[in-house]
Amino acid sequence: MSSGAVLTQSIETIAWTPEGVIMIDQTRLPRETVYVTCRNYREVAEAIRSMVIRGAPAIGVAAAMGVALGVLHSSDPESEMPVICEALAKTRPTAVNLFWAIDRMKRVYASARHLPLAEIRKRLVVEAQAVREEDIAINRAIGKHGAALVPDGKTVLTHCNAGALATAGFGTALGVIRAAVEMGKRVDVFADETRPFLQGARLTAWELQRDGIETTLITDNMAGHFLKSGRIGCVIVGADRIAANGDVANKIGTYGVAVLAKENGVPFYVAAPVSTLDLTLASGDAIPIEERAGREVTHVQGVHLAPEGIGVANPAFDVTPNRYVSAIITERGVARAPDEKSLREMADNKTR
Amino acid sequence: MSSGAVLTQSIETIAWTPEGVIMIDQTRLPRETVYVTCRNYREVAEAIRSMVIRGAPAIGVAAAMGVALGVLHSSDPESEMPVICEALAKTRPTAVNLFWAIDRMKRVYASARHLPLAEIRKRLVVEAQAVREEDIAINRAIGKHGAALVPDGKTVLTHCNAGALATAGFGTALGVIRAAVEMGKRVDVFADETRPFLQGARLTAWELQRDGIETTLITDNMAGHFLKSGRIGCVIVGADRIAANGDVANKIGTYGVAVLAKENGVPFYVAAPVSTLDLTLASGDAIPIEERAGREVTHVQGVHLAPEGIGVANPAFDVTPNRYVSAIITERGVARAPDEKSLREMADNKTR
Repeated sequence: MSSGAVLTQSIETIAWTPEGVIMIDQTRLPRETVYVTCRNYREVAEAIRSMVIRGAPAIGVAAAMGVALGVLHSSDPESEMPVICEALAKTRPTAVNLFWAIDRMKRVYASARHLPLAEIRKRLVVEAQAVREEDIAINRAIGKHGAALVPDGKTVLTHCNAGALATAGFGTALGVIRAAVEMGKRVDVFADETRPFLQGARLTAWELQRDGIETTLITDNMAGHFLKSGRIGCVIVGADRIAANGDVANKIGTYGVAVLAKENGVPFYVAAPVSTLDLTLASGDAIPIEERAGREVTHVQGVHLAPEGIGVANPAFDVTPNRYVSAIITERGVARAPDEKSLREMADNKTR
Repeated sequence: MSSGAVLTQSIETIAWTPEGVIMIDQTRLPRETVYVTCRNYREVAEAIRSMVIRGAPAIGVAAAMGVALGVLHSSDPESEMPVICEALAKTRPTAVNLFWAIDRMKRVYASARHLPLAEIRKRLVVEAQAVREEDIAINRAIGKHGAALVPDGKTVLTHCNAGALATAGFGTALGVIRAAVEMGKRVDVFADETRPFLQGARLTAWELQRDGIETTLITDNMAGHFLKSGRIGCVIVGADRIAANGDVANKIGTYGVAVLAKENGVPFYVAAPVSTLDLTLASGDAIPIEERAGREVTHVQGVHLAPEGIGVANPAFDVTPNRYVSAIITERGVARAPDEKSLREMADNKTR
């Protein structure tokens, strides 16, 4: 991966170019705005693993582009396609959008495999770009459906970063906030810093500050205090995988925020595309939870915080049972008190 | 305040010497084990304010020693005593032990003011040392009462540092854990890192590691995930002020842990000396909550995490309503389902 390319004046999360996949390096924000170019599928896989790019929808886009890049450089895709897909699939286990995007690219490949190599390549590149473009449109639709739920004149609490940086653009949870602001609602945001990776402090705060949306950074353990205080009108978060019964896997800490929201009578909304639904899993208990390196907890930007040799746990996600979820906001509408019936309807219907 | 004195081989939180009050610098642990000497009451006040020493009981000891030091250096205590007490009282607003200790020293002064200056000084120094020694005995008694409540073979979750470093020695919450281990129970500890000041990552992890008690460091937002998992047998925390109805002010994030414990059927215990009770306040709503500098949130050990200019909230404490508190463990016994009646009995009776 090479650093330093400047894409455009406006910030984009990920873009396809013939030279490779360009991504803003999310490990270096907000201190440095640096773009990296992944010139082959292995570099894309490494960018996903190391969280240069993160966020379930953005990971899906990156994986689709990784497959396209792999086949673009392959003279024997029939034997290499499974290797490329496997390398990208094993980067991170929880966000289902990764597997959804790879499956989508596999289907395009399967339908094109009898065609000349140049045509196969072209179709995969077109598909990967379509995944990106569709994601922005999906987020706009999520925003439109969700904006109606945001109370006027109150604070929205969000956890982690489900913004433009977590998607191809606009964002899911932050897309709902942006859409509410666009329709004239007075909204300010409390952003959990989201340890250990600090997506809230580094990415959400940065995005919202650029948009001029008033934002207050808090540590994760302050969320309960402010939910109890009455100033939070609703919580909106993204999702990494949603089981058929409406249980939601999302960034570690989401479960705690959801319980505290319910305890204080504050609505808890999940904003995610339909591609985040995993109807093959009956409940959230079956969602694999990624355990990441302890060093993410013991060190912050290279500074060692804890005593040497201390034990560490670092589950990157948790599961929020459906009873804490007031509604799931998708591009096809809002599933209130989500359950298997409402989510299957959401997945089956193109509009709602 | 001067650095570098080495007190003894064993770690002590705070000690009186004729040259001044020696404290281990808790802002530098665990990377450096450095003692500072506060040579006058102003330096003691600054050490409390800057959290060189923290933890409600330890702050009480420091304040008592600060008063003694102030009068030791005063040729006119009759006019200076109020100034000394005021300087120490305005350092931090939430922990009531600070005001309790200052009031105790004021009472000794009032009873001795007719005596020669040398005798006044002697009595105040003796009293300050007594506050320290009694605190260690109190913590041993808290440990004895609380150890029976700790489930054998399960994990104890704790938040912040209510250990030897937060007291004159042994600790309140960690004292209960130590006493349970001493009586042969198999106990391991999950320690919330406790942003923003990282008392859990820096102090609790360090203390327990030195004692050979198996400890796993987690970020604050992981507590809910592990409380839901079934591995946590109980939660034990300290307290900074307990209102007459049993509402508990403690380190920010305590309220969230308490709600998540109750939601998952895990007992939530508060370990604190009777000096932490404030029976003048009907409920926790009246407890003043300290707001500290935003820089504690945006920076970690000098490293800037968040975008420049972002808004920050930094309440240092929150209030846990009594309905989430399974029991309050004091040196005089255990108040189960604490309420005004049980706490007034605890405060009035010497033994229970």
